[in-house]
Amino acid sequence: MTDSPRSHGRLSISASVKPRELITPTPRIKGAWTARIITLFPEAFPGTLDLSLTGKALDQGLWALETIDLRPFGLGRHKNVDDTPAGGGAGMVLRPDVVAAALDQAAVGTPADRAQWPVVYLSPRGTRFDQAMARRWSQGSGLTLLCGRFEGVDQRVLDHYRVEEVSLGDFVLTGGEIAAQALIDATVRLIPRVLGNQASTEEESFSDGLLEHPQYTKPAVWEGREIPEILLSGHHGKIAAWRKAMAERLTKERRPDLWRAYRAAHGMDPMDDQEL
Amino acid sequence: MTDSPRSHGRLSISASVKPRELITPTPRIKGAWTARIITLFPEAFPGTLDLSLTGKALDQGLWALETIDLRPFGLGRHKNVDDTPAGGGAGMVLRPDVVAAALDQAAVGTPADRAQWPVVYLSPRGTRFDQAMARRWSQGSGLTLLCGRFEGVDQRVLDHYRVEEVSLGDFVLTGGEIAAQALIDATVRLIPRVLGNQASTEEESFSDGLLEHPQYTKPAVWEGREIPEILLSGHHGKIAAWRKAMAERLTKERRPDLWRAYRAAHGMDPMDDQEL
Repeated sequence: MTDSPRSHGRLSISASVKPRELITPTPRIKGAWTARIITLFPEAFPGTLDLSLTGKALDQGLWALETIDLRPFGLGRHKNVDDTPAGGGAGMVLRPDVVAAALDQAAVGTPADRAQWPVVYLSPRGTRFDQAMARRWSQGSGLTLLCGRFEGVDQRVLDHYRVEEVSLGDFVLTGGEIAAQALIDATVRLIPRVLGNQASTEEESFSDGLLEHPQYTKPAVWEGREIPEILLSGHHGKIAAWRKAMAERLTKERRPDLWRAYRAAHGMDPMDDQEL
Repeated sequence: MTDSPRSHGRLSISASVKPRELITPTPRIKGAWTARIITLFPEAFPGTLDLSLTGKALDQGLWALETIDLRPFGLGRHKNVDDTPAGGGAGMVLRPDVVAAALDQAAVGTPADRAQWPVVYLSPRGTRFDQAMARRWSQGSGLTLLCGRFEGVDQRVLDHYRVEEVSLGDFVLTGGEIAAQALIDATVRLIPRVLGNQASTEEESFSDGLLEHPQYTKPAVWEGREIPEILLSGHHGKIAAWRKAMAERLTKERRPDLWRAYRAAHGMDPMDDQEL
């Protein structure tokens, strides 16, 4: 890390009240979409995000990742970040004052408009993350993610900072770090030029509200199983129609909830299942 | 890795037709719950799973992690694992013959009963992963996870091996590796002794079908905001009742779907919202 006072652009943290060492940036180009992660385990990042296409894009500065270690904001000689839950019970709860200091640090240089830069706590109580949220986030300028551990975070700091609670799904993780990686991966791949092949993001699951049709590749016959004949016909119109019919059938069978939403969005009676 | 011929217990891979180097095990105790992961990025593991409680439990041999690199099963000089989609379109599809060879390798020494050892492909088309699935998996003896990349996997190999498709949620990731870590984290923490504090897993979100009540800790007053008085009363019965009421209110407000299921499970009219 350099001590140079030169500007790092819109997201410069030079005005910070905290030592600059608290933020560990990766190289980035000015204005690149940036994930700031408040965590007790900064070593978890970039983790899997450093591999494959997201890693290549990170190297190229198409997006940036900054971790803010929660520990230095802790209190006393032992830098305590948590305490026992008021009213008793198992586990520990992150203190509001400690989390607030980290959130203040994370806010330095970010736009005040939360639509441009959401501030998110990863929690099973939150709104379910989905492709629409990933797309919305990818069109902003960045994102702050607070990773929980233990029993959770003091509710007052979530209220005071109007932190948005977002959930990966109806299950419990030991911490928010893996969930953060999932959210970032889903978001970053929608940033222009991160995936080499833009068409790929448009055809896949959820972009049209349907599950993806089955895929096949070589060999033409494997274990006595053939690729559906129509896919080898070379007739693009028929192939597209077959894929759409398969996607609709799969969605109807596996995800009645998506199927109803799809039918409603396409002006069909959401409850009439007789058409397919 | 040792070349010693001694038994590694039930999960020994010494009878394998493939070189032992293809599987990279961590130390484990006999019979420990084991995740086998087929991936093009074995270096993604254990990743974040190596930290905190899951990492400590991995070190202690309370669970085990084995990666199976898909690349050596590839074809030709370049070890190709994928090819273009039949019928055209963007991206690449994993070949059935290549994936089959890796699945055969992953099956060595595992019980035939899929309830004991599920074989899972991580895909947004799959059944949604949830806490009940994590609990079921944690009671088995292990799990094989196939991590996709590109457009997907040839459908024939999923059919032929009766691979269960499981989804982390309604969003698209660049690959299955982060999703695998999430599923493993959620599962492993339910294995006895992995979390030091067993009570903690019983009280939290979803174990009773409700979102978790808000948490508070010291200081008693922060930014003019007080901890709810009842939590400081010392009256355990009233505290439990308050927490339950808060959990119910939160679930009703944020997750009508969970709320209806909860009411149905507790013999209340699922549609009557007037009681709270």
